[in-house]
Amino acid sequence: MCRWLAYSGSPVLLERALYAPAHSLIDQSLHSTLGAEPTNGDGFGVGWYDDTPRPGVFRSIEPAWNDQNLRELAAHVTSGHFFAHIRAAIGSAVQQTNCHPFRHGRWLFMHNGFLADLTRVKRDLVLAVDESLYPEIAGQADTELLFYLALTFGLEDDPAEAVAQAIGLVEAVGQRKGVKYPFQGTIATTDGERMWVFRYSSERRSRSLFFTGHVPTLRELYPDREVLFEVSDDARLVVSEPIGDLPGAWNEVPESSYGVVGRGEDRLSPFVAKPPATSVPITA
Amino acid sequence: MCRWLAYSGSPVLLERALYAPAHSLIDQSLHSTLGAEPTNGDGFGVGWYDDTPRPGVFRSIEPAWNDQNLRELAAHVTSGHFFAHIRAAIGSAVQQTNCHPFRHGRWLFMHNGFLADLTRVKRDLVLAVDESLYPEIAGQADTELLFYLALTFGLEDDPAEAVAQAIGLVEAVGQRKGVKYPFQGTIATTDGERMWVFRYSSERRSRSLFFTGHVPTLRELYPDREVLFEVSDDARLVVSEPIGDLPGAWNEVPESSYGVVGRGEDRLSPFVAKPPATSVPITA
Amino acid sequence: MCRWLAYSGSPVLLERALYAPAHSLIDQSLHSTLGAEPTNGDGFGVGWYDDTPRPGVFRSIEPAWNDQNLRELAAHVTSGHFFAHIRAAIGSAVQQTNCHPFRHGRWLFMHNGFLADLTRVKRDLVLAVDESLYPEIAGQADTELLFYLALTFGLEDDPAEAVAQAIGLVEAVGQRKGVKYPFQGTIATTDGERMWVFRYSSERRSRSLFFTGHVPTLRELYPDREVLFEVSDDARLVVSEPIGDLPGAWNEVPESSYGVVGRGEDRLSPFVAKPPATSVPITA
Amino acid sequence: MCRWLAYSGSPVLLERALYAPAHSLIDQSLHSTLGAEPTNGDGFGVGWYDDTPRPGVFRSIEPAWNDQNLRELAAHVTSGHFFAHIRAAIGSAVQQTNCHPFRHGRWLFMHNGFLADLTRVKRDLVLAVDESLYPEIAGQADTELLFYLALTFGLEDDPAEAVAQAIGLVEAVGQRKGVKYPFQGTIATTDGERMWVFRYSSERRSRSLFFTGHVPTLRELYPDREVLFEVSDDARLVVSEPIGDLPGAWNEVPESSYGVVGRGEDRLSPFVAKPPATSVPITA
Repeated sequence: MCRWLAYSGSPVLLERALYAPAHSLIDQSLHSTLGAEPTNGDGFGVGWYDDTPRPGVFRSIEPAWNDQNLRELAAHVTSGHFFAHIRAAIGSAVQQTNCHPFRHGRWLFMHNGFLADLTRVKRDLVLAVDESLYPEIAGQADTELLFYLALTFGLEDDPAEAVAQAIGLVEAVGQRKGVKYPFQGTIATTDGERMWVFRYSSERRSRSLFFTGHVPTLRELYPDREVLFEVSDDARLVVSEPIGDLPGAWNEVPESSYGVVGRGEDRLSPFVAKPPATSVPITA
Repeated sequence: MCRWLAYSGSPVLLERALYAPAHSLIDQSLHSTLGAEPTNGDGFGVGWYDDTPRPGVFRSIEPAWNDQNLRELAAHVTSGHFFAHIRAAIGSAVQQTNCHPFRHGRWLFMHNGFLADLTRVKRDLVLAVDESLYPEIAGQADTELLFYLALTFGLEDDPAEAVAQAIGLVEAVGQRKGVKYPFQGTIATTDGERMWVFRYSSERRSRSLFFTGHVPTLRELYPDREVLFEVSDDARLVVSEPIGDLPGAWNEVPESSYGVVGRGEDRLSPFVAKPPATSVPITA
Repeated sequence: MCRWLAYSGSPVLLERALYAPAHSLIDQSLHSTLGAEPTNGDGFGVGWYDDTPRPGVFRSIEPAWNDQNLRELAAHVTSGHFFAHIRAAIGSAVQQTNCHPFRHGRWLFMHNGFLADLTRVKRDLVLAVDESLYPEIAGQADTELLFYLALTFGLEDDPAEAVAQAIGLVEAVGQRKGVKYPFQGTIATTDGERMWVFRYSSERRSRSLFFTGHVPTLRELYPDREVLFEVSDDARLVVSEPIGDLPGAWNEVPESSYGVVGRGEDRLSPFVAKPPATSVPITA
Repeated sequence: MCRWLAYSGSPVLLERALYAPAHSLIDQSLHSTLGAEPTNGDGFGVGWYDDTPRPGVFRSIEPAWNDQNLRELAAHVTSGHFFAHIRAAIGSAVQQTNCHPFRHGRWLFMHNGFLADLTRVKRDLVLAVDESLYPEIAGQADTELLFYLALTFGLEDDPAEAVAQAIGLVEAVGQRKGVKYPFQGTIATTDGERMWVFRYSSERRSRSLFFTGHVPTLRELYPDREVLFEVSDDARLVVSEPIGDLPGAWNEVPESSYGVVGRGEDRLSPFVAKPPATSVPITA
């Protein structure tokens, strides 16, 4: 169980999104209300885009609520495109290399959920990672493995298709190993221009996911909220659990669907996991 | 807000007290039920006595629930006298030097509560610490300061009297500075042979404190509980919040009282804070 | 023993100054050559100015050479005015609140050296800190105390005078307590527009301090060095130990002197510690 | 580059071996003299045996020289069989799961050296790890992988043979991938009763390794050294680099050899890496 937040829009100080709102993501690290676990204190990570070629990533094993360096960073870094993640570890160690978001080139990836029965499926999934990508895997988190599977299946060319194949492989291997519901979770990935968000689980009872409504409409609803006039018309937040205190601001991403946000694009589509196109060896 | 546990009795592996019971102290680091805050994730500490002259102290800024080294230590260290503390920081930094228990010579000291409005009273209280003890203060926690005040007032000779004077000074300085309820909390201190536990607050609405009943009586109540037959007749646990699942096992320490446990002694007495005997300069 | 670096000039990515040069500050964390100790692995800190009202400060207890977050920060933060410090602890704990630079409002302060026999002089020096500033002291480092003394003596109005008085008090108290050479070190402080750097010790054998020559002159000497053409004419680095591989680039700050850099100002003056103007109580 | 120490003999406080001697292992964390790198500040680990079924392991990412908890542990834990390791990371992250010693059941394993060109050989080596052991791999260190290969080849039954096969496989895969000298290092492994130490490299220029002479003989040489009279006749230290100040105390383990110590056994034999008996798939 984790919580995450993704922002795309006109540049803002990170703290505007991470600390300022009521029931902020940082508050949720101590007191989540929608999560399976109320505390997400096993580390955190932030990834942000600026003018440099690669996004910055700041990850720590301290609980987010008392990390002074995160507070400093958030008060000084401005970005128009960023991810933040707070972690509740399930099994894997609390170490920076297991903290989200994960990065490859210009891409970031984060996840709230899990690969069920990881020890039974891990080896076969690791074998399916492209050999040239394999040495980059630095931690032991299920999400990092899922990211490298998606990269193997072409994340950088067609993110929705690649994630569908990666989860499809997880389900195929899981079923062969007798895992009832192999995948659970919401995912966000981005290249710094557009972001793709997914809500899916093998069980069709997926973790919650919400996105903010159209900013001009929100301004009409809440004409006295300054923040709505500071951000651009196309600004979007996508979150595991609503933040702030504007009841009409949030829409739920439907079960088994994915969305694309950014560069004018802005749509929701059904999501279907599919077995990977390339044949992947699975041990008996 | 914090949670603590103190054990005195026949030697046991620390994990028997820290991890094994239902709703154990380590569980409480993530989900306390009686505390003002459900999460006590801002570090922890353990202090234990063995054959060496000085108690061992292991303190960490990680949440106790995911500290692998604490788990190892608890599985390998045996002691007949130990303290454990999990911290929810109020204001002061999350750093080892602010973690309880604090140590001076053979003495340990820990606290669940606070000195109200610390910034207004701190300087006067620091001035009251004996000059020879002053350089030992390593952190910025209110509890460490309280410990050095108690040492100044003779903790090593008469712990109950010294704590009464230390809290009395906190109240005297607080009142002069306009602090309504200067002290809140439960305290435990020990020299490795006896332990003194206190429950008191200026407001007379003190944090909870419990101690286990007489072991032979508990054995009659729960004849199938092995742990009760492993420990000595005189074993005692004192805790902020009951652990385990033996409803009749716990007695509450009454408001405004203190207890002494160990070396055959075993009594509860009323606690009254008193102005320190020696005159202490207080700035206007 | 520590090492530090201060930059003032046109905005650059921090990594240009911290990581890129030969024998960079980060290299010096592992292999210093001029320092009393070759390893400065007891934490580090960076402070930088941007458009926000208060400088950012990032401090960590990990050795700088392997801190991944410092590497990320340095690759993404651009500043025209920043401090960096790597620490070799002498006695005080390795904790963030003991890491330099220290901050108060818009001011930063860092130090390579020590207050000799700190335990003998500390209490009297703490007493001399202005009562309104006292509660801000968060750690136990001698340098943080020196900073608050300098603030007490007017650092924000006249930095050179305030530092002279702070060191003067350290010497006065030290002498009364029988400390032979009470102060040692180099100091840098800044308000984000100008910086003041000091080289002084009671013994007159002060830690080394160097500053870069005039950029236009350096360009003539090294016409093929791109970095010299990227920075502004008035750019200056001040360091404990030269970095890079341009032999003619560095001038030594003379013994017992201080310099001012920035806003057109650019001068070196003799430094004399002086007893504080206000009377300060010193215990016998 | 790392440094390690292994002790077998009558029970002693860990601090007797780790901190007390001149040029102790903890001193070497800051100033090694024989190592390829003078600083071993990228974490450390200690593993020790007592009456419980599994050895204790304490690992930290802080430099050993300033870890207060290591100092406490070493002052309170007594053992007749323990390993200690200080790390200088080469490439892999500084995280607890990469710190030595590694543990499986009652076995510990540590290493000073490396698998050359790890990214080229890692995937094939991971594939050779027994499927039932694979899920236990928690970090990304080359040594952890080597340990699981040795376990796959029967470490628990015949340690010398299993290590020979594990290194043999590393060499076989390395040669197929064009790695000139695939293995370098000294290794220690133990089940808590005997320990096996190895000195070997593909290049035949192996890292140094030393063991203490016969205790009764050392007592004759140094009749005034108390420590020699406190330990049992059969006590042995094996180290990367001699500690203490007894020049005649140390013998070098010869190039390409291994030793067995404990339970009356005490012998040195030649070491030859050998291709694994079972066929292992290697990708082209």
